[in-house]
Amino acid sequence: MPFARPLLALCLAAASAVAADALPSWKDGPSKQAITAFVEKVTKEGSPDFVAPAERIATFDNDGTLWCEQPLYVQFAFVLDRVKALAPQHPEWKDTQPFAAVLAGDHQALAAAGEKGLLELMVATHSGMTTEEFSAAVAEWMATAKHPKTGRLYTQMVYQPMVELLAYLRGKGFKTYIVSGGGIEFMRPWTEKTYGIPPEQVIGSYGKLKYELRDGKPVLVKLPEPGLVDDNVGKPVGIQTFIGRRPIAAFGNSDGDQQMLEWTTAGAGARFGLIVHHTDAEREWTYDRASHVGKLDKALDEAAAKGWTVVDMKAEWSTVYPPVP
Amino acid sequence: MPFARPLLALCLAAASAVAADALPSWKDGPSKQAITAFVEKVTKEGSPDFVAPAERIATFDNDGTLWCEQPLYVQFAFVLDRVKALAPQHPEWKDTQPFAAVLAGDHQALAAAGEKGLLELMVATHSGMTTEEFSAAVAEWMATAKHPKTGRLYTQMVYQPMVELLAYLRGKGFKTYIVSGGGIEFMRPWTEKTYGIPPEQVIGSYGKLKYELRDGKPVLVKLPEPGLVDDNVGKPVGIQTFIGRRPIAAFGNSDGDQQMLEWTTAGAGARFGLIVHHTDAEREWTYDRASHVGKLDKALDEAAAKGWTVVDMKAEWSTVYPPVP
Repeated sequence: MPFARPLLALCLAAASAVAADALPSWKDGPSKQAITAFVEKVTKEGSPDFVAPAERIATFDNDGTLWCEQPLYVQFAFVLDRVKALAPQHPEWKDTQPFAAVLAGDHQALAAAGEKGLLELMVATHSGMTTEEFSAAVAEWMATAKHPKTGRLYTQMVYQPMVELLAYLRGKGFKTYIVSGGGIEFMRPWTEKTYGIPPEQVIGSYGKLKYELRDGKPVLVKLPEPGLVDDNVGKPVGIQTFIGRRPIAAFGNSDGDQQMLEWTTAGAGARFGLIVHHTDAEREWTYDRASHVGKLDKALDEAAAKGWTVVDMKAEWSTVYPPVP
Repeated sequence: MPFARPLLALCLAAASAVAADALPSWKDGPSKQAITAFVEKVTKEGSPDFVAPAERIATFDNDGTLWCEQPLYVQFAFVLDRVKALAPQHPEWKDTQPFAAVLAGDHQALAAAGEKGLLELMVATHSGMTTEEFSAAVAEWMATAKHPKTGRLYTQMVYQPMVELLAYLRGKGFKTYIVSGGGIEFMRPWTEKTYGIPPEQVIGSYGKLKYELRDGKPVLVKLPEPGLVDDNVGKPVGIQTFIGRRPIAAFGNSDGDQQMLEWTTAGAGARFGLIVHHTDAEREWTYDRASHVGKLDKALDEAAAKGWTVVDMKAEWSTVYPPVP
C-alpha cells in the first residue's frame, strides 16, 4: 500500500511535533531544559538515575505555584464572600468585628483584626457544617466568583505552563500531588477538572472532623479544631503522613515550600526542586523577599545554594494564563 | 486461516477459565455471589448502577480482615519484641513496669498494667526515632518474626481469599485502600509486596511528626502525641481526610469497622458492605461478640439489618492462608 507511506510519515512527524511540544508555554530556557533533562534521566530504562514508576512522586504547592495568589489568597476571597452570604443568618455580625469590617468592606478595620480576626473568620466559614455542605458551597462559589483584576473565574487564573508540566509529568509515569497550605476541602471540589489531580492526591491544611448520625444518616461535621497546618515544616509531615514515600521532585514558590523542597531533594538518587519566581509585573505580579503574600526569601537563598531551578516567569513563560473558553 | 480457529477457541476457553477463577479460594456460596454480582453491575457500561473507574474506591480493614489478629494483634507482638530488642539501651526497664513484665514474659503483670501500660509500651517503641529508622525496624522484624501458633512469617498469615479479592477488584478498575486501626507506619513497609497496596493507599492510626535538620540533613521524628486514631468513628474521618471520596465498597470484621461500613453504604447508588465472620476454629479462630480482640457485636446486628454480606469463613473459604513458598 504505497499510498500509506506518506500518511505514516505525516503521522510520525505530527507525533514527534506533539512530543517536542509537551511544554509549549515554556520558552526554551534554562528551566525547561532542566525539567526535561531530569525527566529524561529518571525515566530512561538502564539509566543510572532510572526511577521505577511507583516512586515517581511529584509534589506541587498550589497558591502562587499552580495558580495566582494575588492580590490575596483565593481562599481568603472565598472567606470574605462566604461571610456576606451567611450574614442574613447572623444578624449580630453587623455589630461584631471582624465580621462588621468584612460586611462594610472596611479593609483597615479588617487588617486591625489581625491573625485572631482571620481565625474567627475561618472558623465561622469553615466549620460547623458537614463536609458535603462545605464542598457544595465551594463548588458553587468557584463556578461564579471572579478575580478582582482580570475578571476571570479563579479556575482560569491557573498557570498554563504549570498545567502543561503536570500533564507532561503524568505522561512520563509520575503521580502528581498538590501539597498546599490551603484547605484540603477547599481544593478537592475542583482540582481534578482544573489540574487533572484527583481528590486523593490533594494534601492541604485541615481541621478535625466529627462522625455523627443525623436521622440515622451518617455525616462528617467540620470542627474548628486544627488537624494539620500543611505549610513550612508541615509540608514534609503531610507528605509522609499521606503518601509515605519521599517525592523525587517538588515545585513551590515561597518560603512555605522550603522544607518540602529540602525534604524532597535530600533523598538518595536524582532529585529535582523548582521555584516559580514572580517576576512579571505586566502579565502577573512581581514579588519575593518583601511580600506579605507568598514571601520568597530564605528559599530563594537556599535555591541558589542547592541548585534548585528558579523559573523567571517573565523571561521563561510565553503564556501565563490559559485561553478563556 | 482455518487452522487458527481451534487455537482461538482454546484461547477463549482458557481466558474464560481464568476469568471464572479470579476468586478460586472462595467457594461458590452467597458471599462470592454477592461480591461478583455487585462488581458486575457497577462495572458494566450502560448499567443503571455503573460507577466511573475514578469513583471505584474500596476500603479494607487489615487486622482480622486481611490478616490474622489472633492470639494477639501482630503489631502488639512487634511491640513486645521491640521492647526486648531495645532493652540493652534501657537498663532501667528491668525494674520498671510494664517493661519488666514484657522482659520477664509475665503476662499477668502485663495485663495488670492495662491501657496505661500499653500506651507506655507504644510510646517507647513507636516514638523518638525517625520515620526511616522505624520503617527499617518494622521491615527487619517482618522478615524474621514468626506467628506463635503456625510458625509462619506474619506476611504468610494473610487470608488468601482476601488477597484474591483485592486483585480481582483492582482488575475491575477499583482502587483498593487499607483503612486500619493499626499504625500507618507499621503497615506501609510491607503492604505493597503482600497485598499489592502501595504506601499512599494505606490509612491507619498515626502520631504527630516533627521536621528537623540533623547535621543539615532533614529527618522526620515520630512524636508520642497522637494524630488520628483510625478506628470506629475515626475510620470515616480517615477516609474523608486522606481520600476525599466516599468508598463504594468496604470490608471489615469487627465493631471497629461499623462506622466505615455505615459511611460507605449510606452513599447514593450501588454500595457494598462485607464482614468477615471468624467461624473456623480448626483452620483459624472462632470469635465474635465476646472477644477482646476483634469484637464483632453491634456491627453483626447492623449487618443483618442493612443487608451487609457476612462471610462464614469456615463454610465459604476453601483455603485460609496462602501456600508457603
